[in-house]
Amino acid sequence: MKNFTYYTPTKIVFGKDTEKEVGQLVKEAGATKVLLHYGGESAQRSGLLDRVRESLKEAGIEFVELGGVVPNPRMSLAYEGIELCRKEGVDFILPVGGGSVIDSAKCIAYGTVYDGDVWDFYDYRAEATDALPVGTVLTLAATGSEMSKSSVMTLEEGWLKRGYGNDLGRPVFSILNPELTYSLPDYQTACGIVDIMMHTMERYFNLTGDSRLTDVLSEALLRTMLEYGPVAMENPEDYNARAQIMWAGCVSHNGLLSAGIDEEDWSTHKLEHELGGMFDVAHGAGLAAVWGSWARYVYKEDVNRFAQFAVNVMGVTNDFRDQETTALAGIRKLEEFFISLGMPTSISDLGYDLTEEQIEELSYKCCLMGRCTIGAFKRLDQDDMAEIFRMAK
Amino acid sequence: MKNFTYYTPTKIVFGKDTEKEVGQLVKEAGATKVLLHYGGESAQRSGLLDRVRESLKEAGIEFVELGGVVPNPRMSLAYEGIELCRKEGVDFILPVGGGSVIDSAKCIAYGTVYDGDVWDFYDYRAEATDALPVGTVLTLAATGSEMSKSSVMTLEEGWLKRGYGNDLGRPVFSILNPELTYSLPDYQTACGIVDIMMHTMERYFNLTGDSRLTDVLSEALLRTMLEYGPVAMENPEDYNARAQIMWAGCVSHNGLLSAGIDEEDWSTHKLEHELGGMFDVAHGAGLAAVWGSWARYVYKEDVNRFAQFAVNVMGVTNDFRDQETTALAGIRKLEEFFISLGMPTSISDLGYDLTEEQIEELSYKCCLMGRCTIGAFKRLDQDDMAEIFRMAK
Repeated sequence: MKNFTYYTPTKIVFGKDTEKEVGQLVKEAGATKVLLHYGGESAQRSGLLDRVRESLKEAGIEFVELGGVVPNPRMSLAYEGIELCRKEGVDFILPVGGGSVIDSAKCIAYGTVYDGDVWDFYDYRAEATDALPVGTVLTLAATGSEMSKSSVMTLEEGWLKRGYGNDLGRPVFSILNPELTYSLPDYQTACGIVDIMMHTMERYFNLTGDSRLTDVLSEALLRTMLEYGPVAMENPEDYNARAQIMWAGCVSHNGLLSAGIDEEDWSTHKLEHELGGMFDVAHGAGLAAVWGSWARYVYKEDVNRFAQFAVNVMGVTNDFRDQETTALAGIRKLEEFFISLGMPTSISDLGYDLTEEQIEELSYKCCLMGRCTIGAFKRLDQDDMAEIFRMAK
Repeated sequence: MKNFTYYTPTKIVFGKDTEKEVGQLVKEAGATKVLLHYGGESAQRSGLLDRVRESLKEAGIEFVELGGVVPNPRMSLAYEGIELCRKEGVDFILPVGGGSVIDSAKCIAYGTVYDGDVWDFYDYRAEATDALPVGTVLTLAATGSEMSKSSVMTLEEGWLKRGYGNDLGRPVFSILNPELTYSLPDYQTACGIVDIMMHTMERYFNLTGDSRLTDVLSEALLRTMLEYGPVAMENPEDYNARAQIMWAGCVSHNGLLSAGIDEEDWSTHKLEHELGGMFDVAHGAGLAAVWGSWARYVYKEDVNRFAQFAVNVMGVTNDFRDQETTALAGIRKLEEFFISLGMPTSISDLGYDLTEEQIEELSYKCCLMGRCTIGAFKRLDQDDMAEIFRMAK
């Protein structure tokens, strides 16, 4: 077990009707003027935004609004938000939406109090030392951004998609009402399930060897997703299934499942980020499309680990004389699960026929123009990345 | 899944040599004058207190000291601490020790800024609205107090032992170095293992029925204790085993394993608190002595739940035609585990031969002189409590 710091200050307010507490929570956080930040029309149509506005008014909180966040949220809107916050003297950012809206809100929170270009943080050129507080109302179980320190943004110039993590970005509070996820299209629900599982797995596949408690907690969470994912797909208004998934989304990404591990991997996320930057692919679908190829490319680094995953998570019967068979059966079984959710397991399933030129471009961007490798379970250089994209074609 | 709030702001700094960071962490918390609070001589003898003093000095932090905390920490010393803090203008409490020291520190933290008698909080007569910040250096894996909102104190007048929980009592930071637990006597290590398991089980045995994620996380943690408890007993300097146990102690009691459950139980703790108040029994040993009797008294309220525990935690083979047999086998198997650790499974094992008069007194105090019931899995009144004490004799 390696030394670690665990810090999850976000207050989670979970359950039915909890969005009505938002005004009070914002007030307790000491906010005087709020930026209400959101995406497209669904939050407006569903009446959620009106309920949030009402709650803010009741608590006597002033606010301005900025909508229009899109999936793979864009820097141009964040820059607009930063300008608006400065002009209006905003001191609290309130995203209402899924991970894209929350990530965009975090970017605005960093940028409003930073003298330079906020993209510096996402491009690994600087570290944030301050940020406005953020509180969230979550409408989609997927990214874990509601409790995590991460924010992923896309710079339109060059379509660069980059993630940045800083404890200052952890929300002060997050409101999670599983009922708000009832109306999600099946495809988005499935994408969320994949994303939550991948947040767990990018941590789980590590070479530490002695992080048992973290292992078994991760395995328990993954099995819960295998169990309740299909229930939510079958009956989108099954409160309990939605609740398990929504809470799992939080736990998967708040740091608990990194405790004591040597190094997280995040290769699949980074490969997908490039796909998402180039094609505007739904994040969860992109992860599902790439993961199996990543797994088959790297599993030999620690066959036992993949066998453990196969048995403890996927329910594969262990072949004690041939762990490799067990390991590969686990990979196959998870792909079958993705397919059962209507998710892709290749890039062509996403509807794209990658050219060799595109593969080179994706890999070149993914290694930051040759500046770095990705991954920890197996370090991947530009050639490795290209090979995985080829396998995932 | 029930509505819940999850709030664990404590920053955990976990691993080898982490006690050397204490000065810096206290400084970051904005403290100017610290009360260094500790127990007997072991922290002094081991050199830990000197390392902590050194780190405080290096960070330029002024401090005063108060030692002498005993197991089942007493109000008289806490009152002394409160007076000292007021006189010296202390603004931060730094307990170095196990749960008793931390609980005493929390009591001082509440009391220093409270006009009335701090016992009001423990006697359910008032709610704290303010507290000095507390940061801890943990030397014993057991109570989970390093991340929890709980504090348990004993009032010598009448030997009343009472717990109080408030988010204001959650430490700002806690430093956990598993090496600091190497020197614990076996008996204390075993007590800690029982306590950690019981913190999980007092939550796990609930009637919610649809808290799957919380269930499986709890089961995973309990299995880890069954696996690594004996390793630490066998080899007290096995870093990995000590680390799993220490981290489990934190996770078991920080609120994660209560997420979405209907109501926690805490009967075994409350019954033990009375024993501890009357006899100065080690807390974990008292829990082990009482639990089996509690379990046999209540399991019929939900046989399936006890069968689930037996199979998923204790590894009992399920008897599908007779869940009751499965349930009882699980109870027996956990008692066997307690015995394997050298723990008692009855009050006579603790060396006390309870009289009927003592049973009546314990039950009378435990129901707060008839003012309340305890438990949620099954509500227990004074007669129920007496019956469990009789079964546990």
